[in-house]
Amino acid sequence: MRLGVCYYPEQWPREKWESDARRMAELGIRRVRIAEFAWSRMEPEAGRYEWEWLDTVIDVLARQGLEVVLGTPTAAPPMWLVHQHPDVLPVAQNGMTYNFGSRRHYDISSDVYRQYCARIVEQMVRRYGRHPAVVAWQTDNELGCHDTVPTYTEVARARFAQWLETRYGEIGALNDAWGNVFWSMEYRGFDEIGLPNRTPTDANPSHWLDFRRFMSAETASFHALQGDLIREHAPGRDLLHNFMGFFTAFDHYEFAKSGLDVAAWDSYPIPRTEVLWFDDDVKHRWARSGHPDIPSFNHDLYRGVGRGRMWVMEQQVGPVNWAPYNPIPKAGMTRLWTWDAFAHGAELVSYFRWRQAPFAQEQMHSGINAPDDTLTAGGHEIARVAREVAAFESEFVANASNARQQRAPVALLFDYEADWIVQTQRHGADFDYQRLVFEWYSAFRSMGIDVDMLSPHADVSGYALVVAPSLPIVPDSLVAQIANSNAQWLFGPRSGSRTRDFTIPATLPPGPLQAALNVRVLQSESLRPTLRLGVTIDGVAGHGLRWRDHVEAGGGVTVGAAFDDGLPAIVQSGRVRMATACFDDALLRALLARCAREAGIDVIMLPEGVRLQRLGRLRFIFNYGEVAWRANAPDNARFVLGNREVGPADVAAWVV
Amino acid sequence: MRLGVCYYPEQWPREKWESDARRMAELGIRRVRIAEFAWSRMEPEAGRYEWEWLDTVIDVLARQGLEVVLGTPTAAPPMWLVHQHPDVLPVAQNGMTYNFGSRRHYDISSDVYRQYCARIVEQMVRRYGRHPAVVAWQTDNELGCHDTVPTYTEVARARFAQWLETRYGEIGALNDAWGNVFWSMEYRGFDEIGLPNRTPTDANPSHWLDFRRFMSAETASFHALQGDLIREHAPGRDLLHNFMGFFTAFDHYEFAKSGLDVAAWDSYPIPRTEVLWFDDDVKHRWARSGHPDIPSFNHDLYRGVGRGRMWVMEQQVGPVNWAPYNPIPKAGMTRLWTWDAFAHGAELVSYFRWRQAPFAQEQMHSGINAPDDTLTAGGHEIARVAREVAAFESEFVANASNARQQRAPVALLFDYEADWIVQTQRHGADFDYQRLVFEWYSAFRSMGIDVDMLSPHADVSGYALVVAPSLPIVPDSLVAQIANSNAQWLFGPRSGSRTRDFTIPATLPPGPLQAALNVRVLQSESLRPTLRLGVTIDGVAGHGLRWRDHVEAGGGVTVGAAFDDGLPAIVQSGRVRMATACFDDALLRALLARCAREAGIDVIMLPEGVRLQRLGRLRFIFNYGEVAWRANAPDNARFVLGNREVGPADVAAWVV
Amino acid sequence: MRLGVCYYPEQWPREKWESDARRMAELGIRRVRIAEFAWSRMEPEAGRYEWEWLDTVIDVLARQGLEVVLGTPTAAPPMWLVHQHPDVLPVAQNGMTYNFGSRRHYDISSDVYRQYCARIVEQMVRRYGRHPAVVAWQTDNELGCHDTVPTYTEVARARFAQWLETRYGEIGALNDAWGNVFWSMEYRGFDEIGLPNRTPTDANPSHWLDFRRFMSAETASFHALQGDLIREHAPGRDLLHNFMGFFTAFDHYEFAKSGLDVAAWDSYPIPRTEVLWFDDDVKHRWARSGHPDIPSFNHDLYRGVGRGRMWVMEQQVGPVNWAPYNPIPKAGMTRLWTWDAFAHGAELVSYFRWRQAPFAQEQMHSGINAPDDTLTAGGHEIARVAREVAAFESEFVANASNARQQRAPVALLFDYEADWIVQTQRHGADFDYQRLVFEWYSAFRSMGIDVDMLSPHADVSGYALVVAPSLPIVPDSLVAQIANSNAQWLFGPRSGSRTRDFTIPATLPPGPLQAALNVRVLQSESLRPTLRLGVTIDGVAGHGLRWRDHVEAGGGVTVGAAFDDGLPAIVQSGRVRMATACFDDALLRALLARCAREAGIDVIMLPEGVRLQRLGRLRFIFNYGEVAWRANAPDNARFVLGNREVGPADVAAWVV
Repeated sequence: MRLGVCYYPEQWPREKWESDARRMAELGIRRVRIAEFAWSRMEPEAGRYEWEWLDTVIDVLARQGLEVVLGTPTAAPPMWLVHQHPDVLPVAQNGMTYNFGSRRHYDISSDVYRQYCARIVEQMVRRYGRHPAVVAWQTDNELGCHDTVPTYTEVARARFAQWLETRYGEIGALNDAWGNVFWSMEYRGFDEIGLPNRTPTDANPSHWLDFRRFMSAETASFHALQGDLIREHAPGRDLLHNFMGFFTAFDHYEFAKSGLDVAAWDSYPIPRTEVLWFDDDVKHRWARSGHPDIPSFNHDLYRGVGRGRMWVMEQQVGPVNWAPYNPIPKAGMTRLWTWDAFAHGAELVSYFRWRQAPFAQEQMHSGINAPDDTLTAGGHEIARVAREVAAFESEFVANASNARQQRAPVALLFDYEADWIVQTQRHGADFDYQRLVFEWYSAFRSMGIDVDMLSPHADVSGYALVVAPSLPIVPDSLVAQIANSNAQWLFGPRSGSRTRDFTIPATLPPGPLQAALNVRVLQSESLRPTLRLGVTIDGVAGHGLRWRDHVEAGGGVTVGAAFDDGLPAIVQSGRVRMATACFDDALLRALLARCAREAGIDVIMLPEGVRLQRLGRLRFIFNYGEVAWRANAPDNARFVLGNREVGPADVAAWVV
Repeated sequence: MRLGVCYYPEQWPREKWESDARRMAELGIRRVRIAEFAWSRMEPEAGRYEWEWLDTVIDVLARQGLEVVLGTPTAAPPMWLVHQHPDVLPVAQNGMTYNFGSRRHYDISSDVYRQYCARIVEQMVRRYGRHPAVVAWQTDNELGCHDTVPTYTEVARARFAQWLETRYGEIGALNDAWGNVFWSMEYRGFDEIGLPNRTPTDANPSHWLDFRRFMSAETASFHALQGDLIREHAPGRDLLHNFMGFFTAFDHYEFAKSGLDVAAWDSYPIPRTEVLWFDDDVKHRWARSGHPDIPSFNHDLYRGVGRGRMWVMEQQVGPVNWAPYNPIPKAGMTRLWTWDAFAHGAELVSYFRWRQAPFAQEQMHSGINAPDDTLTAGGHEIARVAREVAAFESEFVANASNARQQRAPVALLFDYEADWIVQTQRHGADFDYQRLVFEWYSAFRSMGIDVDMLSPHADVSGYALVVAPSLPIVPDSLVAQIANSNAQWLFGPRSGSRTRDFTIPATLPPGPLQAALNVRVLQSESLRPTLRLGVTIDGVAGHGLRWRDHVEAGGGVTVGAAFDDGLPAIVQSGRVRMATACFDDALLRALLARCAREAGIDVIMLPEGVRLQRLGRLRFIFNYGEVAWRANAPDNARFVLGNREVGPADVAAWVV
Repeated sequence: MRLGVCYYPEQWPREKWESDARRMAELGIRRVRIAEFAWSRMEPEAGRYEWEWLDTVIDVLARQGLEVVLGTPTAAPPMWLVHQHPDVLPVAQNGMTYNFGSRRHYDISSDVYRQYCARIVEQMVRRYGRHPAVVAWQTDNELGCHDTVPTYTEVARARFAQWLETRYGEIGALNDAWGNVFWSMEYRGFDEIGLPNRTPTDANPSHWLDFRRFMSAETASFHALQGDLIREHAPGRDLLHNFMGFFTAFDHYEFAKSGLDVAAWDSYPIPRTEVLWFDDDVKHRWARSGHPDIPSFNHDLYRGVGRGRMWVMEQQVGPVNWAPYNPIPKAGMTRLWTWDAFAHGAELVSYFRWRQAPFAQEQMHSGINAPDDTLTAGGHEIARVAREVAAFESEFVANASNARQQRAPVALLFDYEADWIVQTQRHGADFDYQRLVFEWYSAFRSMGIDVDMLSPHADVSGYALVVAPSLPIVPDSLVAQIANSNAQWLFGPRSGSRTRDFTIPATLPPGPLQAALNVRVLQSESLRPTLRLGVTIDGVAGHGLRWRDHVEAGGGVTVGAAFDDGLPAIVQSGRVRMATACFDDALLRALLARCAREAGIDVIMLPEGVRLQRLGRLRFIFNYGEVAWRANAPDNARFVLGNREVGPADVAAWVV
């Protein structure tokens, strides 16, 4: 439970370093991330290195007792590299080659670029890998950001062809798997295969899915190239990458397997709320706080990716620069977000950034300090949090130990391939996989239920309720787990609708799920927003939206709810259920409440904006709303943070 | 009056062929279209042909008494061809070259590609041209689809220059015709002329119009190259192409002159409703049935293109995959659409497709059978239609004979060049030529009036009423017909506004129409949606919308209605009228009803969604709406299909 | 106070020239602009010139007493030039090279193109420079139109690098100024610097700002190349360029310094209203008149650019062709717009165009005559204006003399760099610099207050009130003027927020303004349209919108109004105020009225659409609205145009 900060010493006069370090320590900061984006200062020309400044910075920080997280600088190749090797520039989906002049201007598949990356990382890690103050290493920065994964270069094409050859062995197997006989798309050899972009109409969805898998693997291997060097030369240090929220350009579970100790992510609740799918009134309601489930959705997701270990590498502390509108957070939010992260298991909350830069691309991105070193409103809140953390730490040790091994009652299966499949074959213009998952997650959270987010390949034994809002490809291992589990299960629309080759299962959807639920999806329809299908669940009248699987229920299957036109809305066989459509919020809550109760999970209907999270014997309340709430703590609850009356933008915690 | 199906045997295991053919025959299918898209299986490498599989398929089908429509496979060139000749790939308007990986990835102007097309077609037609089971040939598939016509390649540019040289003889004539002195756009030779895309601001509209004409001629000659071979080697077989609905990338009348026995088209009423210009509430109303005039608009249009002979080559039978939203059709629609086609003179209604493909691009496109061979809801309706067709055929022969020569009371002039002109010089952002034509067509249909759609170059003698919703270029032959006809005439806005060179007539619009209607259009205005011009016609108060020609009425001209500001809304001279604006629905109906009555045509105000169609002595009722309708049949009418009470999604027919 | 017309003799048969000239003179036209766009007729092949036709035209016009404005033809390079030098074609921001076929298809940075331009201009000016009928020269036409400035060619890149070298001397200075250490964007030499387009994410805003400055300088030097030749060979003639309304691709003040006698601009009030930022109901209200402040906003701006000398080079006289909707102006508008221009100091109002062209790109653009020489409605109004001008001229001389030196009570600072800064770093999606300026301007005009628009570098001594709706870069000279002036001052949000290098001032915003107003902007926020901040000014309750600077008021600063959440809305120190947000219309009027009153300026609340303008002792009323207004003239006022009752679309003027 540490506080951290992102710091760019190379951007400031050397004479500020000492006072910066001292002021960090005084504020209660314990870890400092540095050096990513500083390639042009470490290697100003090819093969010429300058380390003195970085040696100095690390020493200055260490002298204040600060621990260092070192970032590799490969998110921003310097001009000399691009000048010498212009073919490292990435190519957009429309065929346009990007220019130097911002960041991420590299093709993640480029062999040439990877060599330069390996060289600078090896230089860094040989120099600082065993430095006592350097406790962790971050590779690159926000891999895939700015739509640079996938990239559409000739190099990527050639490596994709090799990857396919490895996967399929011979071209006939690929043609069969993809169904290339359709539209005479058959290849005679792997070298003929191009990228799926720029086709007159849609490319083969199997082509897209394999390309997404390939690009995901490229991203992981790009990280692993650096990670292996770090492992070798920086023994015992944590290896991590800072992921983004709601980002699916690569499979983070697979990425983690390529070498990762901690899943760190960058948390910007307010701009994220502005750019996601929410209606205008929802965006307005949370414009100064962020939607209450946006931070925790990602905390819970990345805790799963990190197999229990999660950091917030960059935490918003004020207005940022990248959403269409960038309001100032309301007072208290920086503190609230920090505690929300700790309550969900974050080991570190690191703020972005120490001081607002008065120049270059992020000058409208605030930090802990204004450019003139005035502590910002967010900075003042951090000072308070630091005091609270210090006071709280003993409670934490006493009551939250082994929290990392703790399980929530609900396992929610999140699948990156599901998102790629839906993006490739949306079918309904407003069908968004992440939105659907978020709606389910949010419904649970609004009923006071903790959620773990897991890969569909994960072991889910021990959970009372396992849900998959949509899972087109159902792994065999999951089918086996259903058979062997005592949990309640709920699957959403499109589940079991595709094979791993992106084809419809021979027995129709839900394919392998039929072993547990004897139904067939005869047809599926997408629904324009005006087409709403009436249905009632446990007395709650609502609507099916966006999508409906026309399900034929076989023997042993009961219809748990039916639409006004008679088609099944919910089918069930023993402990296994399937919802055939997306539901509006109230209806979805009714369905999930029913499942929770049948799984023996308490349902606590929380007011708007209030969230409850358990950690060991600790209970946290976060109030994102505008109305104070009297917490549902037992009369004898011992409050260790705040008190029973939880005001707007406030936090409370007690021990049970 | 036959049923057919689209079938892709190459996509299925050989062992399914026999049972597929048997089940088709049992269902009442009589014709099967095959082989388009199978190039990679007919010619897996350049010059190496494999026919055995196709021989077998045709024999299997023939043994079940099924007739075969053979499609040429040129809509999907195989990889070996593209690999060898990458310059056959088409280029988009923005200059981007398309990639292999879907379909239609060819430049329709490519000489090289045409040679390969001629070779494969000649091989096919030499082999199967006289096969007794092969009764018709379709060239390519949906020419121009996916915005591949026009194409913007260097080859197209060079051929366009030649085409212009043929048209204009010398460059001075072209410069004069286009007015190239404007902005110093004069050329010194035809080889200097480029394509009209990618100019900083609009290219010369005359440049665009000639380019559209050229591309239309290219499309026709591409078809003719194949058609001539088919004519030569497949004597007595029907030659056809499957056109699309609401598609104007080329002039279908001119195309038909290049060699065509039947105008076939592909009917997808529900997705078409979703993607057209309708307001959201209209899209919602017909979301599960399609707009009631979408099928017949195209039936009537293509019956004109085919000079009386029209097929539906692909008929939607369930949800498809290509609209923003793809709902399941309501029960009964497959049957209703089928009868609607027959009532409008279709000789064949062929369903797309026999079985839903579980792989590749169209896996969300349903068919008669689900991927596991379950007959779909649409399939069950087809079985019923087949029984009805069998029972109905004698009535059809007795009462609808010579229907092909029958004329509707109204001739509606539809002009492809009009659409190109409006697209090039829209002037008002919401002025859409096809929308305007559709509104006029739909108004007639809602009043129980049958319509023939014809080229403005067609012979319209015998019609009681001839209307042109908008006809920028008025052919001299049409002016002569006005002078010699006894019909009533009505022209809409922009009529006579352009010469064939896309210039304003010297005497101002309506140019040649002034011989019949002594008016001048002094100026024209486009109207933002909020600018609505009040006008009353026969007691119906409504509004002029989108466009108004400011008309000065000369001697002998009466003003049939005027806008609130005093300018003429309708001008008339004897049997010839002109409406100066677009009108809202109610006002348009009032105007067309007035014209119809003056032409002696019965007006029957039908309820929403109910449509009436006459065929010989047969009268058909189609109920696309939600409310049953008691048909307006005489008391002694003999019902041969359904009965007097026509429920939602139901059909009735009687003999008069 | 002359009337003029734009005429393209090369587009018409020679036999029309005489009658055209005669009819112009009869109508009251006194000046005729010709020859721009006629390059292909002056130089049909490289180095071969044809002048006979132009000699003849000028003589024909001169014989009718008409004065000639000669335009250089460089806005439309002929095909032979492009054919020989395809590298003169411009490149769009996305990297697409434009084609020949319209106009402005040239790279303004091209050395090659500049040589050809110099040659044709020199030929023209040597021939006609001293012709007695040729009284003025216009360079090119609407420089920068159609997004051709900036251009993104390799030539532009190379010249930009040189320009930067001249500006910064050594690369380290540039790296420091831009903050290129951020994201390792440091360059080792000027030749490495690319253009700021096509980067994966935003390029450095300093990079953009310098690129905009460079492109602005390129535009000015392109003009100067021609202007210098004209100065040399056409002594005593006016040198001008016809600018566009609301166009900021280059700095017009800087441009004027490169050689300009008159700032001419092209006035199209109706299409401009349609394409600007107005809400739909505002667009509807002024659909047939144009927004009442659109003409005068530009008159006042260009009068400043031209240091007192302003012409309207092209005045709309009927419906045009380039807005999404193009309605016919309501009767009277051509006359009203003409007088509005004269009242704001225009020396010439020249109509576009003499006759509507029946061919090429502008055939839907009306003129004084229809293509068949019928005088249009606008033409008839011009005849009336000409009579009025003749009658009015003596009043003008008697009462408006020295009007050019007259100052309005209010100086509004308009800054081109401000617009570039906001475009580069909009921060709020709906923050538009020109919109904000226009809102302030319009508020003053609705209160009967005349406004001069000036550069922030201009001398503003003598003004009672100086306002800057937003001024990110505050020049030192302006700070000095504040200190030395007796005026009241008001600055809007974002003022003083950036240095000339596009960085945040070291002392935080408002940077140099802090010398006059002791405040600091700690943070700034952009506000989604639903986030509205309540505030009351002088009893008017309204809202802050779009943006708010969080201001900390230092000693000596009073808070003139505060938002509901307590933060300052207006801060003031003596005569200097700053508004921290954008305000809604009513609130903005309240604020500006307060400032006006404190500056001793009369406030006259005018009805909607009514505008008052003073010129010497003349007072003009323009009624753009729908309701007649009884003018606020003194009882003994002598009306010299119209009378006290000013009807819709009418004009009045009296002498005080």
